[in-house]
Amino acid sequence: MRTLISETISKVGKEILLKGWVNTRRDHGKIVFIDLRDRTGIVQIVASPQLVEGLHSEDVIYVTGLVKARPEKLVNPKLTTGTVEVEAKKVELISKSAELPFDMGQETLQLELPTLLDYRPLTLRHPKVNAIFKVQEVVIDSFRKALKSQDFFEFQSPILIPEVAEGGAEVFKVPYFEKYQVYLSQSPQVYKQILVGAYERVFAVNKTLRAEPSVTTRHLAEVTTLDAELGFIDSWLDVKESAQRTIQFMLNAVGEQCKDILQEFDTTIPKFTPEIPMIKLREAQEIIFKRTGIDHRQEPDLGPEDEREICRWSLEEHESDLIFISHYPVKKRPFYTYPDPDDPEFTMSFDLLGRGTEWMTGGRRINDYAKLLENAKIWKLSPERMGLYLQAFKYGMPPEGGFSFGSERITMHILGLKNIREASLFPRDMERVDVRLSTLK
Amino acid sequence: MRTLISETISKVGKEILLKGWVNTRRDHGKIVFIDLRDRTGIVQIVASPQLVEGLHSEDVIYVTGLVKARPEKLVNPKLTTGTVEVEAKKVELISKSAELPFDMGQETLQLELPTLLDYRPLTLRHPKVNAIFKVQEVVIDSFRKALKSQDFFEFQSPILIPEVAEGGAEVFKVPYFEKYQVYLSQSPQVYKQILVGAYERVFAVNKTLRAEPSVTTRHLAEVTTLDAELGFIDSWLDVKESAQRTIQFMLNAVGEQCKDILQEFDTTIPKFTPEIPMIKLREAQEIIFKRTGIDHRQEPDLGPEDEREICRWSLEEHESDLIFISHYPVKKRPFYTYPDPDDPEFTMSFDLLGRGTEWMTGGRRINDYAKLLENAKIWKLSPERMGLYLQAFKYGMPPEGGFSFGSERITMHILGLKNIREASLFPRDMERVDVRLSTLK
Repeated sequence: MRTLISETISKVGKEILLKGWVNTRRDHGKIVFIDLRDRTGIVQIVASPQLVEGLHSEDVIYVTGLVKARPEKLVNPKLTTGTVEVEAKKVELISKSAELPFDMGQETLQLELPTLLDYRPLTLRHPKVNAIFKVQEVVIDSFRKALKSQDFFEFQSPILIPEVAEGGAEVFKVPYFEKYQVYLSQSPQVYKQILVGAYERVFAVNKTLRAEPSVTTRHLAEVTTLDAELGFIDSWLDVKESAQRTIQFMLNAVGEQCKDILQEFDTTIPKFTPEIPMIKLREAQEIIFKRTGIDHRQEPDLGPEDEREICRWSLEEHESDLIFISHYPVKKRPFYTYPDPDDPEFTMSFDLLGRGTEWMTGGRRINDYAKLLENAKIWKLSPERMGLYLQAFKYGMPPEGGFSFGSERITMHILGLKNIREASLFPRDMERVDVRLSTLK
Repeated sequence: MRTLISETISKVGKEILLKGWVNTRRDHGKIVFIDLRDRTGIVQIVASPQLVEGLHSEDVIYVTGLVKARPEKLVNPKLTTGTVEVEAKKVELISKSAELPFDMGQETLQLELPTLLDYRPLTLRHPKVNAIFKVQEVVIDSFRKALKSQDFFEFQSPILIPEVAEGGAEVFKVPYFEKYQVYLSQSPQVYKQILVGAYERVFAVNKTLRAEPSVTTRHLAEVTTLDAELGFIDSWLDVKESAQRTIQFMLNAVGEQCKDILQEFDTTIPKFTPEIPMIKLREAQEIIFKRTGIDHRQEPDLGPEDEREICRWSLEEHESDLIFISHYPVKKRPFYTYPDPDDPEFTMSFDLLGRGTEWMTGGRRINDYAKLLENAKIWKLSPERMGLYLQAFKYGMPPEGGFSFGSERITMHILGLKNIREASLFPRDMERVDVRLSTLK
C-alpha cells in the first residue's frame, strides 16, 4: 500500500512504501541522500550506496523504508516534509531514465524559454514549473464555480465553424471533406449568444485558435478562453457586475488555494476593491495625457504603454490593480456590439485591465434582428453561413451581453511570468507545435 | 426586480415581474391564456385581449401581474407551477419574434432530424430538447467531480497537434502559417500520458475531431471526450477500477440531479452493480456463439449486433446494463497498448459497453521507452513529430494507463435518443457545420 510523500510526516516510526522519481542524489561516502518526488512533494531518503547503485535523477523507484524524525538542527524548513527522513530498507528500480540534458535539481529552473519548451515533459516535472498549471487549474475551476453560483448553464462550444464572426485575417482555415472549407473558432461568441435564447445564462471553457502571424510575449495560436453570456439584463452594467463578481471570486480562490505557490513566486493576488474602478476610454486618455503629456486622446484604443500607465494610476489613486475601461469606439469593436444611445460613436463595452494588460473584454450586444442583419452586411459576413446566429435573433431575444477571459493571461499576470508561453502547458505559435516546426522534414 | 417562474408558487397574493418568452397562446373570448417560459419553467398568464394584442410564440415579454392560487379542479399537474396562475396587469413587448416555421407548443417536439437541426436556436428552446443538454452538463461536471475526488489534476489538452498518433485516415489537416501542416486532435492521448510524468493523475474535458467520412447515427466530426490517465498502477485492473468508480459516480449524479428529465424521457439510468461484470473478448464471442449460433470467435472485435447481444446477456445474467469487455487483440489497438505477458497477442485493454454500444475505452499503456520507439517505427509514426511524447518515456515513466468516455454517447444512451446528433448542441458531420454545407456558395 503506497504512502504519499505528503503523508510521511504523520508516519514517524512506521515502515512505508513510497513511489516516485529521484529528484536529486547526493553522495556522502557511506550514505546517499535521495530527494524523492511524487505529486504531493519531496522527501529525503537516506540509503546505503549498495541500495541505490546507479540511480540518478528521474529514475522511477519504489522505496520501502522507515520514517524517522530528524534531529531539530537537521530540520529542513524549505521542505514541507523537512521534519522527517526515510531510511531505505529496499529500493526497486521501476523505470530507468536517460541522463538529463540539464540539472533539474535547481530551486528555480533557470532555462531559456526555447529549452524550457523543447524539454516540456521534463521541465513540467520541476516543482516551480509544475505549480504554474495548478494555479491555472484553480483559475479555470473557480471561473466555473463563480458562474454556477450565478445560475449559469455550462456548454461545450464548437471548434469547427462555418463563418468568421470577428474579422478574417487571423483565422485558421480547414479543408472539410473535399468540397468545403470551414474555420477554427476564434471565439464561442456566436454560440453563447444563440444559447442565451435557450438557457438565458451560459458559460463555456473552450479552446480558441488564432493564426496570429507575429511572435510576441503575449499572443498564442491556441488559448483556453473563459466565456459567459447573460440575457434579461437591465443595462450593460449588469454584465459588468457579473464580470466583476466572477473575477473577484476567481482571485480569492487563487489566493486561498495557492498560498504556497504565490509565496514561491514572491507575489500576491492583484489588489482589488469591492467596486473595481471604471472609467471611459476618453477619460483614461485624458488622465494619461495629464500624467505623462502623451496625447492619445483621439486614439480608438489604448496602446500597451497606455494600459500600463492607467493601471499605475488605478493603483495609486484607487489601490486597485484592476480597472475597467468602458466605451470603446464602434469602429474598434465587432459588429454585434451595442452602441451607446447617448453617444452612438461609442459602445456599451468594456475591458478589464490588470497589472498593465487586458484580462477580459465584454459588453452589451445588439439583440435587434434587423440591426444585426444590417451590420452583418456592412461587416461583409455571409448571412447564409451566419444562418443559425441570425435565426436566434429573428425569433425573439432578450437584451443581453457577456464577457470573455483569457486563462493564460490571468495565470501569467497573477504569477508575474514574463512570457505567456510559460502559462501554456503546450504553447503553439508560428514557430512551434510541440516541436520546432523548422526542424521537421 | 424579476421573479423567476419557478418562484411563483411561493408568491401567491403578491405582485411580481416576470420576464420570458411566450411559449403558447390560447384565446378564449375575453380572456387570453399565455404560457410564459423562462429558464426555470413555464407558468400560465391570464390576460385581457387588449394587454396581449398581437403577441405570439417566442415574443420576449415582461409581465407585471398578481399571483393567484388556482381552484383545485383547475390545478395543472403537468406544470410544476400548476397550482398558480398570474393575472397580468401590464405586459411589455421587449423583442418581437417572426412567425414560427412550426408549432413549438407540442409536449414532444415531433420533428425530423434535419428540421430539428436547421432550426437549432429555436428547437433548443423546447423544454424537452433543452433538457438533453442539462443531462450532458451533469455528465461532464460529474466526470470532473469523480476524478477530483480521486485526486486527479485537470488540464486543457491541445487542439492543434503535430502528428497523428492513432492512425491517419480520419484526421483533419490544417495548413499552418504558409509552410507547415498540422492536424486537429483526435484524442488527448499523447498529452495525458506526458502529463502522468508531471502530475501522476490527470484528466481533461476536451474537443476531439475526426474526419469521419460516413454518415451514421453514432459518429460525429466533433465530440466532447472525457479523458483520464493515471500512473503508479499495480496492474491494468487499477485503471479499470478507476473507470468503474467514475462511471458509477456519473450515473448516480444524473440519477439524482435529473430525476424529472429522466421521467419525461420515460427512462432510468442504466442498471449497474457494485462490481460491473467483466469478461474477455474471446469469452464474449463464445457466449454469443452459444446464445445465437453466430460464430464470431475469430473476429478481432465485436460488431454492433455482438455488442447488443452481449449487453442483453449481461442484463439477463448479471442485472447490469453495463459490461466491461477486456483483452482485445494487439492488432486492433493503438501502438501504445500494453500486451498481456501471458498471452501477447492480446492486450490489457478494455471497453465499457452500455445498453448495446461502446461508452468508453481504456487500458494499460506501454511505459518502456525502447518498446515505444520500436512500435512507433512499426506504426510508421514520425519520431521527430512525436518528440515530446517519446521524451516523456525516455526520462522515467511509471506503469500507467487511462480511459476515455464520449460525453455525447453517454447522454444519448442514458436518454434513449436514436441519433447522436440529438446529443450534440451543434452537431458537425460530412453534411453540416451549423448549416447544410451543400446550400452554401
